[in-house]
Amino acid sequence: MTSAERVAVVGTGLIGTSIAMAAVRAGETVRGFDADPNAVARAAERSGLTPSATLEECVAGATLVFVCTPIPELSGLVSEILRLAPLAIVTDVGSVKSRVMSGVVTTADPAHLDRYIGGHPMGGSERSGPDHASASVLDGVVWVLSPASAVPEATVARLAAWVEKVGARPVPMDPERHDRLVAMVSHLPQVASTALMGLAAAEEAGEPEILLLAAGGFRDLTRLAASSPHLWSDILLANGDAIVRAIDLYVERLTRLRTLIGQADAAEVELAFGEAKRARLSLAAKPQVKAGVAVLQVPVPDRPGVLAEVTATMSDAGVNIEDLQIVHSPEGGRGTVHLTVAADAAEDAERALRERWFEPQRLA
Amino acid sequence: MTSAERVAVVGTGLIGTSIAMAAVRAGETVRGFDADPNAVARAAERSGLTPSATLEECVAGATLVFVCTPIPELSGLVSEILRLAPLAIVTDVGSVKSRVMSGVVTTADPAHLDRYIGGHPMGGSERSGPDHASASVLDGVVWVLSPASAVPEATVARLAAWVEKVGARPVPMDPERHDRLVAMVSHLPQVASTALMGLAAAEEAGEPEILLLAAGGFRDLTRLAASSPHLWSDILLANGDAIVRAIDLYVERLTRLRTLIGQADAAEVELAFGEAKRARLSLAAKPQVKAGVAVLQVPVPDRPGVLAEVTATMSDAGVNIEDLQIVHSPEGGRGTVHLTVAADAAEDAERALRERWFEPQRLA
Repeated sequence: MTSAERVAVVGTGLIGTSIAMAAVRAGETVRGFDADPNAVARAAERSGLTPSATLEECVAGATLVFVCTPIPELSGLVSEILRLAPLAIVTDVGSVKSRVMSGVVTTADPAHLDRYIGGHPMGGSERSGPDHASASVLDGVVWVLSPASAVPEATVARLAAWVEKVGARPVPMDPERHDRLVAMVSHLPQVASTALMGLAAAEEAGEPEILLLAAGGFRDLTRLAASSPHLWSDILLANGDAIVRAIDLYVERLTRLRTLIGQADAAEVELAFGEAKRARLSLAAKPQVKAGVAVLQVPVPDRPGVLAEVTATMSDAGVNIEDLQIVHSPEGGRGTVHLTVAADAAEDAERALRERWFEPQRLA
Repeated sequence: MTSAERVAVVGTGLIGTSIAMAAVRAGETVRGFDADPNAVARAAERSGLTPSATLEECVAGATLVFVCTPIPELSGLVSEILRLAPLAIVTDVGSVKSRVMSGVVTTADPAHLDRYIGGHPMGGSERSGPDHASASVLDGVVWVLSPASAVPEATVARLAAWVEKVGARPVPMDPERHDRLVAMVSHLPQVASTALMGLAAAEEAGEPEILLLAAGGFRDLTRLAASSPHLWSDILLANGDAIVRAIDLYVERLTRLRTLIGQADAAEVELAFGEAKRARLSLAAKPQVKAGVAVLQVPVPDRPGVLAEVTATMSDAGVNIEDLQIVHSPEGGRGTVHLTVAADAAEDAERALRERWFEPQRLA
């Protein structure tokens, strides 16, 4: 980058403040505004952004504006900022893109539409607010960019370069496609998790012991159900069509499995489970680990220090842990650790663990 | 225990061999048999059980027999063993209880039914076979006991005492109730995970980039989909009625959410998500941690040794890690660790982490 952008962040919640932190870390100067004066003050403390008292003051003279408010406010704010900041590329960070884009196209001055690029950095946290922000929220994440049709390529390239500069990975994608894909792999899992937890909770009313029988698998599937109801209501409603389609396809698959189970069709049930197993195993490799990964299953007792022994063993052997999962027994007392390491480091990892009396088993 | 049981294990796969290992660890003598001579030889090496060449030899004179074969063979084998071992309590370890029980009632000599107790130790692994067995598979797990109606209480108490002796937790439950509850919290999650992974894989055929957008939530929900298709086909078919009911209730909830999203009913969507969130947060405490737990979110770079630093910090502070979860960015490069610790250790944990420059945030 030959020259720094003049960056403004509007809405200093978790993502807005995280963007400010990543920008300051990259040597940029950032102004921030939030309708809640406490939020912008806290964001300033945490990130070093310069707080502005008004939206106008914040975006005046900016060359790059990130709009990081809740989804329902995005389109109106983007249109207003396109007007207030005539030099700026304006982008937002909403989890849904078509609805925001069409709102901007409807409300903005058409002459300004060559500067609006929808965006979605695919990082975050179950928490919200500037206190939970961190520059690391953006490190290495996919950041989808959906430019309005009038945006010149050079403008998209400028934003993409900035996204790379702060450590994320720009991926251009049209809004409809983005929304269809995240409906399937982000929004549908949220709905599936919530429905399962809600069902178990309803059953618990009549069967207080039911969760005694809920083991690690149930916990995996319901972890997402602890996310913010308000945030998710906004997202789901803004991506309603794509999510309704995703739920329909999901219910179709569930219903097919139900029919096969009801008919006791062992061969077809096994076939469906086999296909899903193959797909899941191929997902197990993190994309950036090109040589593939290996998963080691390590039984461990449940006492202070045992995980430190496992991880120190890896550290001493120079092996990076790609993923680590504790698989609990339903009632505790012992556990199993699943260590994911690069495939070409797996032998070193196994040898080092064996030397320290662990009994790793290679799973994949 | 004043006197040891004479224990026989029939079927020396993962669970059978694990039971033999736990029994030997508790000072018991164990005989084992498997239709596959290699399996019993390997189980003998790993556990110290005495291999038998025939079923008859294995169970002759036994006082306690564990039948640990695949579900379809259980009822017939139990009935045969009740006849071959007239002194023995005979129990099985199938994940489904009604089907096995009714099979035994149909095929066994009615005079033997005062010695049959269905069982289900709720531990295991995605792997199978004696090589993946471990006594720790049973440590602290709930072990459901479903006695036939003719079994005297003292007989159930004898098996329950043995289950406790090897480190598990006996929970009496009638077979229908067991099957209904595990259908909901164990079998349905398996079906839900498989259906989601299958759907994403089908979409991937037309959208090769879809899994680029799949983050930690999707991975959580699809982890179970990597389990054994054959094993699960047996389980699902043997518990067909309860699973069909569970899938129906699940589809009903999904369909209701679909309708609310389609109608853009923000208040009702938020209400449903709020109920599920409350239920999930109350589940977050592991049962044996009576004071409750706290979850710390710790951003970490993705490099060798960083987890070792986190876990050594906990170890040095004398804090037991109840659970540890790596939440990845979709594209790697950095991660967030969710550390679960006992609530009354959370302050110590936070202080220790801050001293070493980590930035923990308390989530729950």
